[in-house]
Amino acid sequence: MFNFRNMSCKELMKVLGLGAVAFVLGVEWLNWLKRRLRDSRGPLKEVLFFPSPQVCVEHLFIRHKHFPCACPLPHGVETSFSRLLVHLLSARVSLDLCVFSFSHMELSRAILLLHKQGVVVRVVTDRDYMTITGSQIGALRKAGICVRHEMSSAVHMHHKFALVDSRKLITGSLNWTLTAVQSNKENVMVTEEPELVGPYQQEFQKLWEANDPANHKPQYTNGQLNIKTCKDK
Amino acid sequence: MFNFRNMSCKELMKVLGLGAVAFVLGVEWLNWLKRRLRDSRGPLKEVLFFPSPQVCVEHLFIRHKHFPCACPLPHGVETSFSRLLVHLLSARVSLDLCVFSFSHMELSRAILLLHKQGVVVRVVTDRDYMTITGSQIGALRKAGICVRHEMSSAVHMHHKFALVDSRKLITGSLNWTLTAVQSNKENVMVTEEPELVGPYQQEFQKLWEANDPANHKPQYTNGQLNIKTCKDK
Repeated sequence: MFNFRNMSCKELMKVLGLGAVAFVLGVEWLNWLKRRLRDSRGPLKEVLFFPSPQVCVEHLFIRHKHFPCACPLPHGVETSFSRLLVHLLSARVSLDLCVFSFSHMELSRAILLLHKQGVVVRVVTDRDYMTITGSQIGALRKAGICVRHEMSSAVHMHHKFALVDSRKLITGSLNWTLTAVQSNKENVMVTEEPELVGPYQQEFQKLWEANDPANHKPQYTNGQLNIKTCKDK
Repeated sequence: MFNFRNMSCKELMKVLGLGAVAFVLGVEWLNWLKRRLRDSRGPLKEVLFFPSPQVCVEHLFIRHKHFPCACPLPHGVETSFSRLLVHLLSARVSLDLCVFSFSHMELSRAILLLHKQGVVVRVVTDRDYMTITGSQIGALRKAGICVRHEMSSAVHMHHKFALVDSRKLITGSLNWTLTAVQSNKENVMVTEEPELVGPYQQEFQKLWEANDPANHKPQYTNGQLNIKTCKDK
């Protein structure tokens, strides 16, 4: 049995060093095991159905909060909406969002938080629906998030998908509205399958470039320019 | 070299028998090879983006037609819409369809053709959108196809997915309308991944049972019953 009291400083350092190496190797082995287990199941495949019951999602936004949230909603319950938020908030590098209608306050809060954390957020939305009452697009732009909209008024940008860190696809029938989340019958699929993520990433890039205001003639309404660039606040 | 003239009838029968066996084994081997190649790629994963250019799809409906179609549209071109039709028309046993808005004539034609061929078609649709101008729901019901709609008028049945033979899932943002197919920016994913197909099949069954008119009190408008059963023409 080790007796630390009888050990010299050198011997103690050796034991601590070996302990640190064993710890690092153990963590690495656990990560390897986790990856192997995950690979054996294949890439992430999750299906979420809506409507989703209203529950407290405060803990997803403020992770270091130790005191319990005082709101009257049920706490500690996992729902389709909380899963959707978890997937969105997992972004570390980029979020590419292509959504027809965006008025949901909590989803807007999640995007603003990601932007604040340094995640590069790009949004493509529908021309007509970006300005309806309750739309969160203005709030995103005001925060400095790059938003582009479908240039043609004859066409709807009807997609509803998001790409997290260019590797996780979130897609389905769900528009980012309160009615869609809390009332409608909707579906959302979350996958990391490269053969599915790739085409959506290409589609996003295509729409992003096609709707670059720099490539379109400025349009005026009542003498005022009505196409804003990403730098417009 | 074989000389069939010098062979007895018995020998000829033997050769023909061996030929038939070789042919059957060859076909079986090709099928096995096809399955192996397909398994090595994993289950079907296809992404279709819209709008889709207008092309002739007549050959998908009338396979035995030898003379070329005389319509003015481009022929022999594969598009997202023709791929969608191919997947739908591949149904041999059942088609479960859950769609918000359905007014596309060619898609209606495909469903009617499947019904005529004996495929069991079930449709769940939105209460408000089933009766709008151009809706094909009436035509489906008239042909004897079982249609149910979301019972609550406060909720939208906003899904847009189809299940072919309970093993192929077609899902995305695309409503079954001409505008969606020919104008809008839309996506459709086609997959046979059991982990994705399963949840959608369960969701369909849940909606099918929840919207069974037999479980709901009949509603009257101006003294007339306004909920029809599947048997109503």
